[in-house]
Amino acid sequence: MRNVSSYRVIYGDTDQMGVVYYANYLRWFEMGRTELLRQIGAPYSEVEKRGLFFPVTEVSCRYLRSARFDDEIAVDTVLQTLGRATLVFAYTIRRKSDGELLVEGWTRHACLDRRGKVIKIARELEVVLKTALVE
Amino acid sequence: MRNVSSYRVIYGDTDQMGVVYYANYLRWFEMGRTELLRQIGAPYSEVEKRGLFFPVTEVSCRYLRSARFDDEIAVDTVLQTLGRATLVFAYTIRRKSDGELLVEGWTRHACLDRRGKVIKIARELEVVLKTALVE
Amino acid sequence: MRNVSSYRVIYGDTDQMGVVYYANYLRWFEMGRTELLRQIGAPYSEVEKRGLFFPVTEVSCRYLRSARFDDEIAVDTVLQTLGRATLVFAYTIRRKSDGELLVEGWTRHACLDRRGKVIKIARELEVVLKTALVE
Amino acid sequence: MRNVSSYRVIYGDTDQMGVVYYANYLRWFEMGRTELLRQIGAPYSEVEKRGLFFPVTEVSCRYLRSARFDDEIAVDTVLQTLGRATLVFAYTIRRKSDGELLVEGWTRHACLDRRGKVIKIARELEVVLKTALVE
Repeated sequence: MRNVSSYRVIYGDTDQMGVVYYANYLRWFEMGRTELLRQIGAPYSEVEKRGLFFPVTEVSCRYLRSARFDDEIAVDTVLQTLGRATLVFAYTIRRKSDGELLVEGWTRHACLDRRGKVIKIARELEVVLKTALVE
Repeated sequence: MRNVSSYRVIYGDTDQMGVVYYANYLRWFEMGRTELLRQIGAPYSEVEKRGLFFPVTEVSCRYLRSARFDDEIAVDTVLQTLGRATLVFAYTIRRKSDGELLVEGWTRHACLDRRGKVIKIARELEVVLKTALVE
Repeated sequence: MRNVSSYRVIYGDTDQMGVVYYANYLRWFEMGRTELLRQIGAPYSEVEKRGLFFPVTEVSCRYLRSARFDDEIAVDTVLQTLGRATLVFAYTIRRKSDGELLVEGWTRHACLDRRGKVIKIARELEVVLKTALVE
Repeated sequence: MRNVSSYRVIYGDTDQMGVVYYANYLRWFEMGRTELLRQIGAPYSEVEKRGLFFPVTEVSCRYLRSARFDDEIAVDTVLQTLGRATLVFAYTIRRKSDGELLVEGWTRHACLDRRGKVIKIARELEVVLKTALVE
């Protein structure tokens, strides 16, 4: 199970080098994982309503080629690791016109409750998340 | 009473035209009004703790010249209008190296309570805000 | 002729008030006018290749209701004014779930050449733009 | 040789979790390395004028605690590695009020010429950069 989401690069995503500013790819990682959660039936807005939060605790990103203004990109997201109170999503971002790999990375998340304490991922949610776990 | 705050333009503020992306000036308007409120003794973080919120209801901005990477800019902020439940802040942004006027604009704000209802600005806060009001 | 473009609000668009940060709507205005230009056959990337640039010289935006995380929004864009060397685009942003109007605004643009000098919009481009002009 | 730069968190940096959005720390990494380069006498704007560019090829960031609206943060930057055509900067971000460590990370950069080809860092610049290299 993987999610592929599309986005069209706007001017506001670029910097004066004429390419996308490096921090903005992390916005698209977020788009990817949000859409993956929606796809498996656990939309993040619902997760939060149940009092669970998945803040990012670590990010890694390698920039291979640059996305440019007006490029259509495809963000491919998988759930790579599912721990008792942690998740790792992995991402690749490609340019749609030629399939060129632009960026690859991952994010690690903790599972927190409303007070910001680490808690075990709820059993029901864990079952749903497992369906998305890549081998 | 006016506030003048400084900021150094980073790469991430620019776009591929080689100048600051137009939406980013609104971030500096926010910096300016936050610092003005702090200067008069009503830091916005305190305003929120008392249960008052000043969301922007309207913005206007004219772009005269462009800020560029590494420019030091000065944001000059005044409180222009103070109504029962509204405030208008006015801003100019200048390049510090030569004093050139880059941008001028204003933001209108409502005063809301925690539930998002319009309420009169608290008397005590109004007194403080009046000290900042330009004539 | 109008363009309606869709966007799903991400976490990164919101601020601690739990709603979209006011500057980010200007990103969606940009998305809207870029898509309108593409729709009429004058993609902005092509406009720039011919050596014309449409920087924003003024923006106005009224915030009526807030967009929130995960909201699907529709940006409706028209070309409202077409001068010799200026354009005005007008925008409305609605929440798709209930059609609620969230934001309305407009941007004025100059037409510049590569050196940043104001120039008349090229005849050929003007003809295309006229097809998008609302009455 | 290290650079310590300060920044005050604005509303626009936060998200609806009430803390700084994870991508925004990368903006402060950029601020840190730009100020370090300025401090050693090699401002990045000058580097670019000589036709050298240091795009980010990899970033890693660990989020330990959250920065919040109005926090003053200190970004501590060092040059960790200096290769023939690569640089690695390392960063820590602390809350100034209590010195609490919020984030730590690093960025790897390539040295490119105007056409985007990897080239050896110019000898003169290398000498300057070496003065900033931590052991």
